Amino acid sequence: MKIALAQINYHIGNFTSNRDKIISHIEKAKKANVDLVVFSELAISGYPPRDFLEFNDFVKQCNKSAEEIANNCNGIAAIVGLPTFNPNEKGKPLYNSAAFLKDGKIESLTHKTLLPNYDIFDEYRYFEPNNTFEVIAFNGKKIALTICEDLWNVQDNPLYTINPMDELVEQKPDLIINIAASPYNYHQTKIRKEVLKRNAEKYRLPLFYVNHIGAQTELLFDGGSLVMNPKGEIVEELKYFEEDFQIFDLEEIENTTDKTLTEDLSETASIYKALVMGVRNYFEKLGFKKAILGLSGGIDSAVTAAIAAEALGSENVYNVLLPSRFSSGHSVDDSLELVKNYGMPHDIIEIEDAFNTFENTLKPYFKDLPFNVAEENLQARTRGVILMALSNKFGYILLNTSNKSEAAVGYGTLYGDMNGGLSVIGDAYKTQVFELARYINRNGEMIPENIITKPPSAELRPDQKDSDSLPDYDILDVILFQYIEERKGPKEIIAMGYNEKLVNRILKLVNTNEYKRYQTPPILRISTKAFGMGRRMPIVAKYLS
Amino acid sequence: MKIALAQINYHIGNFTSNRDKIISHIEKAKKANVDLVVFSELAISGYPPRDFLEFNDFVKQCNKSAEEIANNCNGIAAIVGLPTFNPNEKGKPLYNSAAFLKDGKIESLTHKTLLPNYDIFDEYRYFEPNNTFEVIAFNGKKIALTICEDLWNVQDNPLYTINPMDELVEQKPDLIINIAASPYNYHQTKIRKEVLKRNAEKYRLPLFYVNHIGAQTELLFDGGSLVMNPKGEIVEELKYFEEDFQIFDLEEIENTTDKTLTEDLSETASIYKALVMGVRNYFEKLGFKKAILGLSGGIDSAVTAAIAAEALGSENVYNVLLPSRFSSGHSVDDSLELVKNYGMPHDIIEIEDAFNTFENTLKPYFKDLPFNVAEENLQARTRGVILMALSNKFGYILLNTSNKSEAAVGYGTLYGDMNGGLSVIGDAYKTQVFELARYINRNGEMIPENIITKPPSAELRPDQKDSDSLPDYDILDVILFQYIEERKGPKEIIAMGYNEKLVNRILKLVNTNEYKRYQTPPILRISTKAFGMGRRMPIVAKYLS
Repeated sequence: MKIALAQINYHIGNFTSNRDKIISHIEKAKKANVDLVVFSELAISGYPPRDFLEFNDFVKQCNKSAEEIANNCNGIAAIVGLPTFNPNEKGKPLYNSAAFLKDGKIESLTHKTLLPNYDIFDEYRYFEPNNTFEVIAFNGKKIALTICEDLWNVQDNPLYTINPMDELVEQKPDLIINIAASPYNYHQTKIRKEVLKRNAEKYRLPLFYVNHIGAQTELLFDGGSLVMNPKGEIVEELKYFEEDFQIFDLEEIENTTDKTLTEDLSETASIYKALVMGVRNYFEKLGFKKAILGLSGGIDSAVTAAIAAEALGSENVYNVLLPSRFSSGHSVDDSLELVKNYGMPHDIIEIEDAFNTFENTLKPYFKDLPFNVAEENLQARTRGVILMALSNKFGYILLNTSNKSEAAVGYGTLYGDMNGGLSVIGDAYKTQVFELARYINRNGEMIPENIITKPPSAELRPDQKDSDSLPDYDILDVILFQYIEERKGPKEIIAMGYNEKLVNRILKLVNTNEYKRYQTPPILRISTKAFGMGRRMPIVAKYLS
Repeated sequence: MKIALAQINYHIGNFTSNRDKIISHIEKAKKANVDLVVFSELAISGYPPRDFLEFNDFVKQCNKSAEEIANNCNGIAAIVGLPTFNPNEKGKPLYNSAAFLKDGKIESLTHKTLLPNYDIFDEYRYFEPNNTFEVIAFNGKKIALTICEDLWNVQDNPLYTINPMDELVEQKPDLIINIAASPYNYHQTKIRKEVLKRNAEKYRLPLFYVNHIGAQTELLFDGGSLVMNPKGEIVEELKYFEEDFQIFDLEEIENTTDKTLTEDLSETASIYKALVMGVRNYFEKLGFKKAILGLSGGIDSAVTAAIAAEALGSENVYNVLLPSRFSSGHSVDDSLELVKNYGMPHDIIEIEDAFNTFENTLKPYFKDLPFNVAEENLQARTRGVILMALSNKFGYILLNTSNKSEAAVGYGTLYGDMNGGLSVIGDAYKTQVFELARYINRNGEMIPENIITKPPSAELRPDQKDSDSLPDYDILDVILFQYIEERKGPKEIIAMGYNEKLVNRILKLVNTNEYKRYQTPPILRISTKAFGMGRRMPIVAKYLS
């Protein structure tokens, strides 16, 4: 039996485009005499459709698409994910389903049992869990068809009390197929392979796994669909961060040994690829071509510009330098070198006039109160206004250049440098931003060395340095990681050897700045715990604050 | 048996304050010879604690508080809600529990079975559902103890496949106690009473219900704890929008007949009270006293100012008038009349200089492109910068003045009039804002009549009116309500008799402006579907857009 895996970049709610992509891959599979072609979880709607699922109209359109796709399944079978209505009187209104298409119709539906409802996942918001189990008989073989999380309950302290494969294995299946929507983070590829390996080994079955590829706003799907033999060895991996389509012969799987993977990306390389895809897909799927961003002379905006140039083409990244009386000379020079290295368009717009006018306008009300955060923010907001004016005038999307460290402790100005349609590096700690810069320069200096080596500064008052008020990023980032990604409390972090006062101060900064992060743009997610939809914190609260 | 209901305003994560409030009510109950005092769901942590629940440190502190509270339970019993660790190897790590405190210790734990996971609820994100059922024997009576949603599966097409009371009733309980965290919306009071009535009637048992009161950022808890007799008649209601504590004699409940409620608030009156509480608690719990807002001369900022004055005291609401070349004369006059009526502080700050400076700064880059949305937004953002500068300088919280109609269709400027720490009327459609204004003027003109009767305008270009580009709000708001609250698709709305082109245009505006709403402040929730945590939409998507 010939099985094809189709790893496709879907567009949420774009029924026409998703359907056409699926049908064109079915046609391609037919030409290669494939028996069964497999698409990913909720392929027809795109993943995650979120609250569109609460619209009956949306779900009906998904089902209509499935029928149109089924019309093309003659002489071939296909598995494709979509939401379906729960026909029972009791329970949630929908199932997360895999349709088995054959002979021009929807032959059967298999529903998802384990519904992830943590971090960025909200599946129990919409779906009733499945509780009946049946393999699919096809061409003399029995397929154990599962959907993503259904294979993930193999950890210690399992999150769910049942295990769908334990039920299905009673019916003596010949292979496992898993259709997935497993988003990228820089640990996920390894974990995902380990989980799949445990399943193949435990049930001694070949395993066919199809994931999404492409960005859906903040969620980045890296692909990496694969086939494993019953020993849990990888027979073949599909591409990462690209669409792919490959055909396998079931009978040959058992005799194929462990494949030496051609490309094993470093963590930083994979983050870079993920972010480039994230920017590119955000613009493509929204129908925009050009980005604008403010180039400060610091490393954050430099790395953001570099990623945008790779994603959109240098000519489509408009860099605006917005120096003030507090900007150091090298800030402009370094930025000019960067835009020259990439050949990106740029302008230099002094903010002095606008800043002065605001100071004069506000003088009668500020009275003689000393220069403080109000004036610092005023500079950042003046820049924000200019960038947004250009963005509005020319139809460019403003890219946000904040990093995760500063977003965590609230070192950013709401409606100023926190502006943007999309945050590119907002899930990368400052130390990771440095690693990205080094990676970008791996074949030669694209980001000027001085941008990487000079001490970080917001340049909002004379001789300001980040280190005036924050510990070294090496220390700050570890504390933040323990708190944010690892959900360690203050006692646990202090027990790791960090200064008690410092830890308490940092955690308090994180929690009291929740109100700022509530209003930030979507952040491309590369970690196990990004700010945004996967981290839901009260604003008015008193914990550690 | 004497049972007391304690309806308290908790503060999320403020373990000391929550614990002390609970203990002081236990002491009060002791003095009145109460046998059992009942507190609400997750009282110890405050509701909703959201992802604080992922911190073991947080859950441990809750359990420590429970033990401290139990120490005070001698000669009295108490029921109090908190998260507890799931001791089983499998399943989610926590339970949503009700602790039964007696004889100085935690006598038993009852766990929640039905975990709401829709709209603003995320309980399956954290909690394992309970699946064992046991009544609590106390003073010769058997208590069926349930937690909020546990009583809610009595609708047609029930959301859950089991019903905890159907299990508990087998053990012949004498009364039902339900501890809840049921947030306000302007339909909720009626629905809540109906649901409780169905339970009392179905199981022929007296019912004691304790809800939260107070605002937790956007979520508004209205209280309305109550006691029902076995006929489903209300014996007593606790106060709405206020803390309350009342004592009942179980033996008398059966013979008490339906109470004539002293206060039956109109929909608009309840919305007004809810919003006032929302503003007041937001400031109190964050430790702020003073608000700032921009007064445009329009109805939205006028109603926002009126609500803030009621919540914080007139002297704590600083109104800034920010006229431009496009502002009509009456805008300033009407605003001045409003601040005079309330005795609120105000300033008039012309934005002309700052706007001109921005225009001059941008002229070389805008070239000769015509005046468009860029210049309109520039005015709104100039105002935003001035308001935020004053907010930063004086430590006032900026109140956002947007309404739900404009937030829905994207008629607002990001980083301009969409700024603020809290959106006061962002869940009220424009037609509801008019009703609020009429309500505020019920005893005399506080909001100048001209503000209510003049045609709405953003005044960002000459002679602009909302009606230039939008249908009448009477029509717009109905279409929006059908789409947002009722989740009707375009075909269904058109079938109600609305113009096809108009409906499609409005729904497209709603969906393509999702990116703006992603960055708005938290919005006090008064409807069944508010923008914010309860409505989760993809940004990059193609449905109806």
